[in-house]
Amino acid sequence: MPRHALATVCLSGLLEDKLAAAAAAGFDGVEIFEPDMLGSPERPAEIAARCADLGLAIELFQPVRDVEALPPEDFAAVLTRLDRKFAVMEQLGVDTALVCSSVHPRAVDDDDLAAVQLHTVAARAADRGLRLAYEALAWGRHVDTWDRSWRIVAAADHPALGVCLDSFHILSRGSDPAPVRDVPGEKIFFVQLADAPELAMDVLPWSRHHRLFPGQGSFDLEAFTAAVADAGYAGPWSLEVFNDVVRQADPWRAARDARRSLLALEEAVGSPAPGLPSRPPVHGPAFVEIAVDPDTADEVGTALHALGLDATGRHRTKPVTLWEAGDARVVVSEEPVPTTSVAGLAVRTDDPEALASRAAALLAPRRPLPHAAGEADLRAVAAPDGSLLLCCPRRPRPGRADFWPGDFVPIDVPRRAGHVEGIDHVALTPPWDDVGETSLFHRAVLGLEPLGEWEVAAPFGLVRSRLLGAGAGADALRIVLSSSVVRRGGWAPGVPAPQSLALAVDDVLAVSRAATAAGVRLVDVGPNHYDDLVARGWVDEDTAADLHAHRVLLDRDEHGEYRHVVTEVLGGRVFLEAVQRVGGYRGHGAADAPARMAAHRRARVTGPGDHSVGSTPA
Amino acid sequence: MPRHALATVCLSGLLEDKLAAAAAAGFDGVEIFEPDMLGSPERPAEIAARCADLGLAIELFQPVRDVEALPPEDFAAVLTRLDRKFAVMEQLGVDTALVCSSVHPRAVDDDDLAAVQLHTVAARAADRGLRLAYEALAWGRHVDTWDRSWRIVAAADHPALGVCLDSFHILSRGSDPAPVRDVPGEKIFFVQLADAPELAMDVLPWSRHHRLFPGQGSFDLEAFTAAVADAGYAGPWSLEVFNDVVRQADPWRAARDARRSLLALEEAVGSPAPGLPSRPPVHGPAFVEIAVDPDTADEVGTALHALGLDATGRHRTKPVTLWEAGDARVVVSEEPVPTTSVAGLAVRTDDPEALASRAAALLAPRRPLPHAAGEADLRAVAAPDGSLLLCCPRRPRPGRADFWPGDFVPIDVPRRAGHVEGIDHVALTPPWDDVGETSLFHRAVLGLEPLGEWEVAAPFGLVRSRLLGAGAGADALRIVLSSSVVRRGGWAPGVPAPQSLALAVDDVLAVSRAATAAGVRLVDVGPNHYDDLVARGWVDEDTAADLHAHRVLLDRDEHGEYRHVVTEVLGGRVFLEAVQRVGGYRGHGAADAPARMAAHRRARVTGPGDHSVGSTPA
Repeated sequence: MPRHALATVCLSGLLEDKLAAAAAAGFDGVEIFEPDMLGSPERPAEIAARCADLGLAIELFQPVRDVEALPPEDFAAVLTRLDRKFAVMEQLGVDTALVCSSVHPRAVDDDDLAAVQLHTVAARAADRGLRLAYEALAWGRHVDTWDRSWRIVAAADHPALGVCLDSFHILSRGSDPAPVRDVPGEKIFFVQLADAPELAMDVLPWSRHHRLFPGQGSFDLEAFTAAVADAGYAGPWSLEVFNDVVRQADPWRAARDARRSLLALEEAVGSPAPGLPSRPPVHGPAFVEIAVDPDTADEVGTALHALGLDATGRHRTKPVTLWEAGDARVVVSEEPVPTTSVAGLAVRTDDPEALASRAAALLAPRRPLPHAAGEADLRAVAAPDGSLLLCCPRRPRPGRADFWPGDFVPIDVPRRAGHVEGIDHVALTPPWDDVGETSLFHRAVLGLEPLGEWEVAAPFGLVRSRLLGAGAGADALRIVLSSSVVRRGGWAPGVPAPQSLALAVDDVLAVSRAATAAGVRLVDVGPNHYDDLVARGWVDEDTAADLHAHRVLLDRDEHGEYRHVVTEVLGGRVFLEAVQRVGGYRGHGAADAPARMAAHRRARVTGPGDHSVGSTPA
Repeated sequence: MPRHALATVCLSGLLEDKLAAAAAAGFDGVEIFEPDMLGSPERPAEIAARCADLGLAIELFQPVRDVEALPPEDFAAVLTRLDRKFAVMEQLGVDTALVCSSVHPRAVDDDDLAAVQLHTVAARAADRGLRLAYEALAWGRHVDTWDRSWRIVAAADHPALGVCLDSFHILSRGSDPAPVRDVPGEKIFFVQLADAPELAMDVLPWSRHHRLFPGQGSFDLEAFTAAVADAGYAGPWSLEVFNDVVRQADPWRAARDARRSLLALEEAVGSPAPGLPSRPPVHGPAFVEIAVDPDTADEVGTALHALGLDATGRHRTKPVTLWEAGDARVVVSEEPVPTTSVAGLAVRTDDPEALASRAAALLAPRRPLPHAAGEADLRAVAAPDGSLLLCCPRRPRPGRADFWPGDFVPIDVPRRAGHVEGIDHVALTPPWDDVGETSLFHRAVLGLEPLGEWEVAAPFGLVRSRLLGAGAGADALRIVLSSSVVRRGGWAPGVPAPQSLALAVDDVLAVSRAATAAGVRLVDVGPNHYDDLVARGWVDEDTAADLHAHRVLLDRDEHGEYRHVVTEVLGGRVFLEAVQRVGGYRGHGAADAPARMAAHRRARVTGPGDHSVGSTPA
């Protein structure tokens, strides 16, 4: 199997932090980014020993810049400089250096000269048993496409000279990676992988600040990787991601995220790593677990009941209640917690053991769940936000003690015939920095697909959200990840931001009336919002008045409508929604978030004239 | 004088927060951004009353989109929509609406049709006493330049139709604002001001996320403003800034920053607001004040002495010591503080009262300084980071009791003849979000000019810095603002980041030897760094060895060299530097920051193998 490598430039910290984090995440090797070494008090040989102790191969020394296509008077200095770098490489025990295509102001547009000079430096490298991997930077002064770099390498024709192919430099320019297949595999000395979002900006700042791990952007890494594999490349797959957020994030966590992205990519191109169990079928949520403080359990229970759920079971040994209606199952666990939270997402699967093992192989920590004798022994792992992902069987299985409903003593009340059909979605609010990781985790482990992304200007800053989902009907599993993009300082309220549990209903007006009759306050965003629905021509005045009277928020896309009501935030962090989808609406009501957030904010305020909690009028 | 307005979209919070903050900062009026109103539970008439109570005029209702150049079948719906918006405007009591050039997919490229349809809607607006300001969005579907919008308005020829000129839309496209002079002033219905950094990206995301208040970006707002004024525009100057950071920042603070930018811009174009005293001459630092905890005063004193300063005075009534050498004066105040910090910058000026009044008129809070009878009564204000800006006379003045050296009882020790010439700079480290505000403050109050910007990849994230300065020789005043760009989560150390006080010296090698002899540890970034200086061809091996032995860091630009030594971080947050500038070097050693930061980080670590303080190996 291909070796997995990580460039030290990807991670935050001192070089020793980066190396330890890469090793802990299971990488086989690293690219040493020279500035990381320059800031280390350890000599290159000591760094080599440190890597060896950690089980890391040093796969690449990088970058070497401005080598080729230079006037002779400049080229002499290049040779002097490279001799010193080659000596460092020998001490590091690394045999390959990355040579970036020149950005030197005096570099000339002359591929023949480039080939001759690269041949010269390759020969000097070969004298020391070293080799050079030539890479076309997307912003190279003259050489800025991979095919041109390959033509120069072919013309230079030296065994110590090959190409380095970096997915960013190739895909950011819209180049077709397919012809990479025709390059002899042994002339591809190195492959660097990076994804990126589509951004309307120059390639240089795009590359330096916005690269992502594979699967977290919009590049077709699968096509790129397949082409390189078809060419016969046998070196490591190495991640080189320049990203402002990752540059300052916990390197241990970032390294796990990075390696997970490689494991997922390999599987996607049909070469899963040995030991990665394939994904068993997943059939929608088994239940959603909400953790509540005992003091707020009544508030949450009242709201669940008002929206149509019945308390149907009490856990045999724990202060945990099961609420049900239609296919919706909500487990409310009472424990001393600072706020309510979505503590767990349980999914139904044909093979809980395989799903949990898969998650663990994708670097999710296992979380053994304490249980009394005779109670279900559920498989669980920690998602990146620390919540549990529980792997539940669809039905009792012979010889297995993990069918969780048996843990609940039925509560003998008649179940109401109501409007709740199931769970529409769970909306989680990780810090924005963690959204890419969290998204990739759920995609890789559960097979969720990205279904849309939104950005809205909310009262306390931009909010971006993405909807992930799989399955349909009772098997539908949807997760919304929603976060403030820049959240800093002491002004903005709601840190951490509220999560929500959205119930799918077949008549939101009826649900609204029942909830109000039960004394549960639904969010009212005020009349101006409904006037605007009329001004848009979405509804007439009578309908607007009826929606407003029912506190129903309305969103629309070209496929249908999304009508929903929202409770106040319960117990500090979770609110409930009842959602009626009409037609083929594909979103999650993101457009309504600003008005909903403003109303939630106002509800937290203690009295008139005191809306500015946390402000600092000077 | 022109009225000052602010668009509510600039600020964070609920509408009531935004209005209160704008009024508190002294704005005369606001633009009501419609989504802010839609999220309010107050009806338009109530919002109007709130504004009136706050003394704010509602200068503009915005935005109205997709009005013109539409096929007739679409235009009918526009009229219906606008009638509803006009009704809202009547309730708000605002007479002007912003009409953005169409981005509608069915808008046609037909200026005659646009003029006819705009005439139609202007006539309907006029029926209600309203008027429309037509603005060319830089990304309008067909109309995307200001001169084209003006030609259409001129052709439509209706008294209720004029243009809105937005500096971003004009300057982002590189359009020359000078011909704006030729537009009749009464046809310019509204002017919006925004600055922006030069960014290599599409105008739409550039506008939506990266606008800045005037003076904080790189647009020539002065030329734009002068052209509009020359045209005879008599309406408000209004700020419309879409900025991800400001969208989530304390609105009271942001509004002050915004209004300061307008005051500075007006002064720059020769029309200072009444009551803004002009800037008296400033002659470099009088002293830098460092606050230290009594427990760390010895550590700081030892380092100052080792670098060549002498304790020359003790304050008559406070635990404050004056240190001097050459033109460098450092005041060390002992008080119980969690860390050391640069607590104040005192500047020498011909007119301390005028400078302090100027700062106050630029919305800096005055900070009366307690002093005993017979002690100097210094004028001081708070800079945005909370530190003091003290306004000191250059010499004793008759009838004035503010010559601060008289507060110190001389310490009778012989002053050493050393190498310290003065204060090279003070490096402050505000959170990145505050750098624009802090920079504008020092430029506006003190007349500092931006002398350069740098971005370096440091071990714990990107660090951006800018150098501000004025004067030369003993009058030179330099402030470096240096910050991590993205600083979130618990991984990165050093929050708040260390500040530094850099002394100008004439022989850094001699200073290094003296400091080491005095037992003060200077930062050693390790041998790899010096090997690289040789590989670059900057120095030969002997020189590199000598620099390393002396712990001297070396930076270079095309004008000269910067040789400096750095102490460990003293008392938690401040380190000292001794700086020798050679030739005309113009920076502040930014390139050395990553190695210096890594060394400072390692020095904080308690022992070998424990470099990963704060990490979370899982």
